[in-house]
Amino acid sequence: SRTIDLAVIPGDGIGPEVVAEGLKVLTAVLPPDVKLKTTEYDLGADRWHRTGETLPDEELESLKRHDAILLGAIGHPSVPSGVLERGLLLKLRFAFDHYVNLRPSRLLTAAASPLAGSREIDFVVVREGTEGPYTGNGGSLRTGTRHEIATEVSVNTEYGVERAVRDAYERAMSRPRRKLTLVHKNNVLVHAGRLWTEVFARVAEEYPDVSTDYLHVDAATIFLVTQPERFDVIVTDNLFGDILTDLAAAVSGGIGLAASGNINPARDFPSMFEPVHGSAPDIAGTGRADPTATCLSVALLLRHLGFEDEAARVEDAVAEDLAERETAQARSTEETGDAIAARAAGSARRDAARTA
Amino acid sequence: SRTIDLAVIPGDGIGPEVVAEGLKVLTAVLPPDVKLKTTEYDLGADRWHRTGETLPDEELESLKRHDAILLGAIGHPSVPSGVLERGLLLKLRFAFDHYVNLRPSRLLTAAASPLAGSREIDFVVVREGTEGPYTGNGGSLRTGTRHEIATEVSVNTEYGVERAVRDAYERAMSRPRRKLTLVHKNNVLVHAGRLWTEVFARVAEEYPDVSTDYLHVDAATIFLVTQPERFDVIVTDNLFGDILTDLAAAVSGGIGLAASGNINPARDFPSMFEPVHGSAPDIAGTGRADPTATCLSVALLLRHLGFEDEAARVEDAVAEDLAERETAQARSTEETGDAIAARAAGSARRDAARTA
Ligand SMILES: CC(C)[C@H](C(=O)O)[C@@H](O)C(=O)O
Ligand SMILES: CC(C)[C@H](C(=O)O)[C@@H](O)C(=O)O
Repeated sequence: SRTIDLAVIPGDGIGPEVVAEGLKVLTAVLPPDVKLKTTEYDLGADRWHRTGETLPDEELESLKRHDAILLGAIGHPSVPSGVLERGLLLKLRFAFDHYVNLRPSRLLTAAASPLAGSREIDFVVVREGTEGPYTGNGGSLRTGTRHEIATEVSVNTEYGVERAVRDAYERAMSRPRRKLTLVHKNNVLVHAGRLWTEVFARVAEEYPDVSTDYLHVDAATIFLVTQPERFDVIVTDNLFGDILTDLAAAVSGGIGLAASGNINPARDFPSMFEPVHGSAPDIAGTGRADPTATCLSVALLLRHLGFEDEAARVEDAVAEDLAERETAQARSTEETGDAIAARAAGSARRDAARTA
Repeated sequence: SRTIDLAVIPGDGIGPEVVAEGLKVLTAVLPPDVKLKTTEYDLGADRWHRTGETLPDEELESLKRHDAILLGAIGHPSVPSGVLERGLLLKLRFAFDHYVNLRPSRLLTAAASPLAGSREIDFVVVREGTEGPYTGNGGSLRTGTRHEIATEVSVNTEYGVERAVRDAYERAMSRPRRKLTLVHKNNVLVHAGRLWTEVFARVAEEYPDVSTDYLHVDAATIFLVTQPERFDVIVTDNLFGDILTDLAAAVSGGIGLAASGNINPARDFPSMFEPVHGSAPDIAGTGRADPTATCLSVALLLRHLGFEDEAARVEDAVAEDLAERETAQARSTEETGDAIAARAAGSARRDAARTA
């Protein structure tokens, strides 16, 4: 028998509510001989208000020893912008070298999209997660005066770009269409743009079966709303990926459905799975939060840990559940979690019966 | 009698075709006592292939002496990415201190939007045009090797941010809703983000009638496709503005309708007006280019030069023309230009008759 040793960071706002449902679904699909051990970490806005801490070294060390991390949401308006983002969320992504920020977009029910007409949307964004304008390089001079100058430095290395690009080619190879689009802005950001473009072309030689394409980030936003079906795998830098994946979430069913994995493919450190949405403090505690994105993040977690069938079961359960959701009759967070868990468990039992 | 001394840069691809229609419309609406003098500048891909020049100093000096510039489009796949963008287009924006890059989004016919449902879209983006990641700061080390590091530096000054933000507040004051949204990413880009946020709040004190709002750039893309009606005036940095205005164009009728002004509000240098779309070399010469964005850019040009009524006439002519466009029966570039010019001239004659 195997044990999954999972760290759980429920976080702020609706974080704890959606994480509870995600864990319910995870428990429902795990094979009987696999045990789940969870350790909760009290991190986020409350902790910061109480102690001034965002992520102390001991907790970072302790997190390192788990198989994976499930995170709800981080952030509250009472905390100055950037404190928790940089002191906790980005600190984890950088400390655990989450160089692939994986964000799939699949339109599961046409009704969920703000776009007119029926659409086949099924692509995944490989967002580089440890470089670009997210490194915290930059500063300011004559701060707060009329002569202030503030800079932000985007840092891009061959090492960092190559491993993200390679991961994207691998993913493209595993998908039927085998198409990979690089998104950047190489006509303006000429240094970083040249590095990305050259690495993208060089690695392409090792993947002759993958068809490749390049789009400037501004043009990519147009295609995301006019021809989202053209995308299969997108690889892009940290900031462009941040922007494109929120837009991708909006066109393919809304931010309530968008899952993400902060992945360390080399498995040097635990990977971390989280819904793309934020802590939504305005609806926290009302039972109105949609736990679907967390359930789909649990599917990514399962796949990362090698439970491919279980991951697919969760995804199928979500797809079936979405197809039957009454838009008129709103369900609570818990009811949605129960419905997805029941479907996923049901299909697990059916699968087991079939195998027996 | 007054003369408008206009510099014209037709540029590449469909540039010359759409500029011809823009000039036709401009001529059609100008009052009889206003003369139009145009000087064409041969700049763009052809010139670069012939001479290796993008924008020689003498031509830059000469351009400086005109009242305004009308530009078609710059760029061709045969020219390495960045050469014309930085050597010509951005060089003009920086040399002529075009610190307000003005991009209105108005949905003129609901059918033109990829969004489902009917929508009231009418906002304008004030994109800062002379700073941010567009300054050409950055470089690379160990270039082309496995140890390369490439950087891009976003440069933001109090002086530069303040004047763009102030312009946006002024524009918000002149509009019925008086609402201004700052878009940035101040939770990650903390130095530039703090500068933008502080300047935005400080200038707000001088405009108590303007209601203000802040959105992270990723969230802004979501609202642009789910609630575009929430926006009135948006102010943002150069790169975020580039991305958001292409998306805004897509949701409000397509890039074929998106106009822009590269404006020096201080009037130290000529302002430059151009459609947001590119040179589209694939359809150049086919007569299929839509000149509407250029006509709307001519309206911005007219307004900038003080011809408010004439600007409104062009905009009305475009709106009427769009409402009657047969989606089935495609018109040529010239036919569309003729139709808009005829309507604009007709309304000019009616207005003149009414005044007489
Ligand atoms: C909260 C913020 C730091 C984060 C990011 O910018 O990466 C978020 O927007 C995301 O996409 O996960
Ligand atoms: C061509 C390019 C340099 C330009 C920009 O990025 O500003 C274009 O995309 C635009 O928006 O005018």
